[in-house]
Amino acid sequence: AWKGAPEMSQSSEWLFKIRGRIQADIGYVDAPRASTDRGLGSVSEMRRARIGAEGTMPGGFGYKIEADYSDNQVEMVDAYLTYAHGPMTVMVGQQNPGWSLDELTSDSGTSFMERAAFTDAFEFERRVGASITYMGKAFTVSGGGFTDNVGDLSNAVDGPSGGDENNSYSVDARSVWFPVAGKTQLHFGGSVHWRDRGDLSRALTRYRQRPFLHGTNTRFLTTDAFNVQSELGYGAEFAAVRGSLHVAAEAAWLRADMVSGERPTFFGSYGEIGYYLTGETRGYKNGIFARTKVRRPLGKGGMGAFQVNLRYDYLDLSDDGVIGGKQDAYLASLIWTPVDLMRVSLNYGWLDYHDALRSSGVRDDFGVSTVGMRAEIDF
Amino acid sequence: AWKGAPEMSQSSEWLFKIRGRIQADIGYVDAPRASTDRGLGSVSEMRRARIGAEGTMPGGFGYKIEADYSDNQVEMVDAYLTYAHGPMTVMVGQQNPGWSLDELTSDSGTSFMERAAFTDAFEFERRVGASITYMGKAFTVSGGGFTDNVGDLSNAVDGPSGGDENNSYSVDARSVWFPVAGKTQLHFGGSVHWRDRGDLSRALTRYRQRPFLHGTNTRFLTTDAFNVQSELGYGAEFAAVRGSLHVAAEAAWLRADMVSGERPTFFGSYGEIGYYLTGETRGYKNGIFARTKVRRPLGKGGMGAFQVNLRYDYLDLSDDGVIGGKQDAYLASLIWTPVDLMRVSLNYGWLDYHDALRSSGVRDDFGVSTVGMRAEIDF
Amino acid sequence: AWKGAPEMSQSSEWLFKIRGRIQADIGYVDAPRASTDRGLGSVSEMRRARIGAEGTMPGGFGYKIEADYSDNQVEMVDAYLTYAHGPMTVMVGQQNPGWSLDELTSDSGTSFMERAAFTDAFEFERRVGASITYMGKAFTVSGGGFTDNVGDLSNAVDGPSGGDENNSYSVDARSVWFPVAGKTQLHFGGSVHWRDRGDLSRALTRYRQRPFLHGTNTRFLTTDAFNVQSELGYGAEFAAVRGSLHVAAEAAWLRADMVSGERPTFFGSYGEIGYYLTGETRGYKNGIFARTKVRRPLGKGGMGAFQVNLRYDYLDLSDDGVIGGKQDAYLASLIWTPVDLMRVSLNYGWLDYHDALRSSGVRDDFGVSTVGMRAEIDF
Repeated sequence: AWKGAPEMSQSSEWLFKIRGRIQADIGYVDAPRASTDRGLGSVSEMRRARIGAEGTMPGGFGYKIEADYSDNQVEMVDAYLTYAHGPMTVMVGQQNPGWSLDELTSDSGTSFMERAAFTDAFEFERRVGASITYMGKAFTVSGGGFTDNVGDLSNAVDGPSGGDENNSYSVDARSVWFPVAGKTQLHFGGSVHWRDRGDLSRALTRYRQRPFLHGTNTRFLTTDAFNVQSELGYGAEFAAVRGSLHVAAEAAWLRADMVSGERPTFFGSYGEIGYYLTGETRGYKNGIFARTKVRRPLGKGGMGAFQVNLRYDYLDLSDDGVIGGKQDAYLASLIWTPVDLMRVSLNYGWLDYHDALRSSGVRDDFGVSTVGMRAEIDF
Repeated sequence: AWKGAPEMSQSSEWLFKIRGRIQADIGYVDAPRASTDRGLGSVSEMRRARIGAEGTMPGGFGYKIEADYSDNQVEMVDAYLTYAHGPMTVMVGQQNPGWSLDELTSDSGTSFMERAAFTDAFEFERRVGASITYMGKAFTVSGGGFTDNVGDLSNAVDGPSGGDENNSYSVDARSVWFPVAGKTQLHFGGSVHWRDRGDLSRALTRYRQRPFLHGTNTRFLTTDAFNVQSELGYGAEFAAVRGSLHVAAEAAWLRADMVSGERPTFFGSYGEIGYYLTGETRGYKNGIFARTKVRRPLGKGGMGAFQVNLRYDYLDLSDDGVIGGKQDAYLASLIWTPVDLMRVSLNYGWLDYHDALRSSGVRDDFGVSTVGMRAEIDF
Repeated sequence: AWKGAPEMSQSSEWLFKIRGRIQADIGYVDAPRASTDRGLGSVSEMRRARIGAEGTMPGGFGYKIEADYSDNQVEMVDAYLTYAHGPMTVMVGQQNPGWSLDELTSDSGTSFMERAAFTDAFEFERRVGASITYMGKAFTVSGGGFTDNVGDLSNAVDGPSGGDENNSYSVDARSVWFPVAGKTQLHFGGSVHWRDRGDLSRALTRYRQRPFLHGTNTRFLTTDAFNVQSELGYGAEFAAVRGSLHVAAEAAWLRADMVSGERPTFFGSYGEIGYYLTGETRGYKNGIFARTKVRRPLGKGGMGAFQVNLRYDYLDLSDDGVIGGKQDAYLASLIWTPVDLMRVSLNYGWLDYHDALRSSGVRDDFGVSTVGMRAEIDF
């Protein structure tokens, strides 16, 4: 079989496939009045550039290993072993610890160039650990224990921020019920996350988010830097797909328990609606959005798939004396999928900020518009 | 089909191949009299170590992604998507912006271990952008717009040299006419490049080049460091291949428009002649030199291909008050290609310097000899 | 054929295989009394995460290239070309310069999570160079000349520790006689290594080793940092495999010739015994331990292979006025190999230290216990 790259197999037990991903972005982030920030304006970057491999072996075992090189630096993405036995799957290594629907959906299948603001602000990332998943006919439950990201565990750095002293750990669980009601695929999910930062609490943490596009390092939304001892996170997920229409909505909370005693709870949420103008149905499988199959690909008598999406994306990083700012973001996207695996996206966003960092030390209310474009392939 | 690694295909539309390259170098760079530079003398390095993948997909789409690890650091090489429709090809991502013949010819197919001195001195490199190419029967025209190299766009670094503030862009075009006259393949080419460095002009730039071999960091040829606002480059190319003989010659100019007002124009040029002792013809295809097929490979009743090459390589980095020095380099190479894809090269160079940096702060005229050896495979 | 990933071939001359390796570790290193070292206690890391490729070509040529990403940094592993002609093999590029049996045995086939203490303490590592190996029926002899590791040769760093000034070189040789006596595979080996550090002698060197597990950066065993001009190393190897039982023992010496005149000789040694509870025979081939084939894999009516191992591991870094400390380590491991290529290991170690660095500046005698666990796949 071919999925961009050949999927090689022998009997039903051996399977092997090379994986790759390229995402090239350009964009523009408007500067608020009186800003002298040179990191705003036109932006351009290789957003993702990945090479990896995945496979299965006899006995129910499997693996996936993938690295990203997009900044001329290595970032391990997935690097795990799996063991599947009936409806149970055990996974050991670096993996996603059951975050939100938007985080778990592949970035080659999301409706916008960047995910919901809370996913970065709350530090959703892959971590090394072990998990177990039960996959039912219309529901899935998973849970696991984790330490930290491969980069944060690296022995190349000593001291409070280094991997050597990193003894943080977390317990994470997620459950989804995904019944089909008539012609509608429904999705109801929830997750909970508890993390003890251990000696990492001696290093400083800040919660923050970029103005939608990843090409700038400016963060209008950011808290000060704190010593955080532990974090409690939870999330609620809803989605529905019917014909060419889909909706999705999530809410996520993160309570940061600071060494100094404060316990602010930050909150993020989004709601989105999308429609395929060309008749496709958004892919959905086993509790997350999956690939969408193009009905009439370019070069086969069609023009590919066209999809429009609208999203409202809210993030509030102010609570219990901490002022990190709030955003009301209004996003629109147009996605052209000429053939399976390849996409060109055009995104527009208007971000309305409250108590945000206009420039160093000055908090204010202001609005910023952004526009971005991406060409991508994923195999 | 096999090209070092298997080239897998399904129907005529799906194609996939893993790519790899290893180049291991040793060499010696003589030190000028009175030099105490410990970076000279014997040198050794893994010159290139790459892994990548390329493929095509239905609808005319394709991709290539490759990274280099030769310094225990990642450097993205090609990372682009293509769309071909008839004689037109659109390319998006990191790619070569139509530089000179010597720069565009794969380093596994060049006549010497390192390319012409002007290619590094004028900062020829891959950049993120979009281009369009028209391929005629005996000519090709291409043009595109680009920002900067993946590493220079990386958000890991802030400030004037960092990717966050990088808003540089360039417009580049190249055209080649490559008729066949009797038994002779001819090549006449030209390219033009205009680059606005934008906020990069706040960081310092210096134009410089190593003494032929890459294993040393010493640069006898180097300008001081300047704030450069924009650059205008152009080049002329000629080549001919007839039987076992080939010649190639190029000239390249780079005008640097400094913030301080100076506008020096630097100049580089080379001429080379090469001959296959074993009867091969140097590969040429679509406006660049391509792989050469070995006639009698080692192990198939032959000894492989032997090629000798001579090159004169000139670079002048002094103009309009700027003194960067000049070189007249006389190079000779012997290349043994025992089987397709594998080469062993022996290179000798005599570099005659004028106004070059003998040691920190002291400019002088002197000569330096170099010898290098490379074992390489490319698939 | 399949070896985790498909091994593709065409005729008998072309062969190609993707390589990958994942090793995820957790563990605990006890702290000596009065220690406030936060790098001890619980540890966790991605120990290895590798992607690579290997192949052969017509004419007797071959190659292997592999990189490790386990710390979100690149580390080139093997990157070499080979030419085989009858019993001789020439190898050019980064490779292992004929170190000890334990170092040369793949980390996916060793009996413990980490190799003998002397292998790191004496800086066994891959280096760029050229070697030649003669493989007889029951013996092998190899020798070569090398410069340094790809990372140490990198031009990204200047100065005495940088690749630019690195002119170190070494000459290394190893020989093994591996007769079969009745039902017993025997192994008698020896190696010798001489290295001139050249200008590297201007940078400081320290000999040191972690407390068995790699997840901590703490080294109880460490010399001060010296300027070392040259090193002379030699080693003796013995091993035997009979049925499900194997034994192995090695001794290694390293004499460091310091610029200041001292010439301490450090010494390391280990002895191990291992047994397969499930009837397997430990793999052995051409002078090193090789893969072990699981007799009754999980999912094929068996539970996989279970192996128990005991090892005594000695290291003495004190001599001729240098005090680096000594260890007597007592190690036990249980390895479960459910199917070929996949392993889960549980390791325990008691390390008895003499003159070791309890905390900064304080040398003392003390004991430390460690426990570690690894899940791994290698293809």
